[in-house]
Amino acid sequence: MSFSACVLTLYPEMFPGALGLSLAGRALEAGTWSLEAIQIRDFATDRHRTVDDTPAGGGAGMVMRADVLAKAIDHASPEGDLRPRLLMSPRGKPLTQRRVRELAAGPGAVILCGRFEGVDQRVIDARGLEEVSIGDFILSGGEPAALVLLDAVVRLLPGVMGNAVSGEEESFENRLLEHPHYTRPQEFEGREIPVVLISGNHKKIAAWRRAESEALTRARRPDLLENGKTNND
Amino acid sequence: MSFSACVLTLYPEMFPGALGLSLAGRALEAGTWSLEAIQIRDFATDRHRTVDDTPAGGGAGMVMRADVLAKAIDHASPEGDLRPRLLMSPRGKPLTQRRVRELAAGPGAVILCGRFEGVDQRVIDARGLEEVSIGDFILSGGEPAALVLLDAVVRLLPGVMGNAVSGEEESFENRLLEHPHYTRPQEFEGREIPVVLISGNHKKIAAWRRAESEALTRARRPDLLENGKTNND
Repeated sequence: MSFSACVLTLYPEMFPGALGLSLAGRALEAGTWSLEAIQIRDFATDRHRTVDDTPAGGGAGMVMRADVLAKAIDHASPEGDLRPRLLMSPRGKPLTQRRVRELAAGPGAVILCGRFEGVDQRVIDARGLEEVSIGDFILSGGEPAALVLLDAVVRLLPGVMGNAVSGEEESFENRLLEHPHYTRPQEFEGREIPVVLISGNHKKIAAWRRAESEALTRARRPDLLENGKTNND
Repeated sequence: MSFSACVLTLYPEMFPGALGLSLAGRALEAGTWSLEAIQIRDFATDRHRTVDDTPAGGGAGMVMRADVLAKAIDHASPEGDLRPRLLMSPRGKPLTQRRVRELAAGPGAVILCGRFEGVDQRVIDARGLEEVSIGDFILSGGEPAALVLLDAVVRLLPGVMGNAVSGEEESFENRLLEHPHYTRPQEFEGREIPVVLISGNHKKIAAWRRAESEALTRARRPDLLENGKTNND
């Protein structure tokens, strides 16, 4: 069974976007996964196709209506649909490679893209939406975040990566940042490839890479080394 | 002077993508910012237009060549170009709203999108690339991350957001997650808007929202409350 993604959005024309090209695009064409983009506005009930209204209690911006979103979600994900329902939101749990792997092992995902000031809390509660954040920054809407999430998931689907080993050796799989990479030419603007890497001594190479990874992680992301103190699991 | 973005990529057709629509798309049309996507492959020197080679020291995947990338960067960002040179990479410093604001206040950005196993370290060093990560997960390449970064930056450019206040009240500007939002209808599937929000008492509403923000942040992101212990600055 292929991975089935459904995106609820005010901008369905943003999809597949970058996901229609490269690895994800070829996998989409091959049927390894499917992508449906649903226009939330189609579930509005007035003739102006309104999806938002002013925030209760006042304040800036507009809030997406619970009733309209509930209809869109119920259409996309009727009772019995086993796919998790995600809401891309900066309030959500930070996305991790572990959650990406879990999603890739599942049947798919229904992804609601928020816009404006936010989404009425009652539809989040009533439909059990899992709020997912891709980082501590603010986007114009959930769509770019959904593209990122799906890109991360799709590359882990069976047969998508040319070299399956590659996925296992990467950053975060072992809570360390990747060591530096080098390739030909041997000299670039007077800079040489580190001697150990051309020594042919696989044990020394592995030790050097491990040490570089650890040093880089300590310098840039000590939080990854402090077990239990981060949100990275 | 408008914000000038240049993306170096093996998939220039991924741009502007989602950035050609909605807020960012209108701002692009209005000339508030500009976007150039440059094909790295055009700077290869052999007839196969090779951009990568096997990793020195062995291992899975391919590494992008320093010499080819240097040529592409020097073309896009000649000496005297004041724009920061970014490399989207999971090894980078996590992107924060503070860095997004800094970038939006600057002249633009030159963004290199990595692919394959990584980029030869020597071009990162020689061209002073700032490695930026959008999160602890692995993408097929830097392109979806570049879309996210530019989306975050462009919405902060003068005149892009319909309501300038909106940008100030959001998550992370004050290191707290946003309080829940509600809007009409007053009742949704038996769920009412919290009474305080329809009280008209602005002081009580502000206090309720602040308390909700703090409770949510404590529950979901205690790391945001621990000053000096995170990478969120």
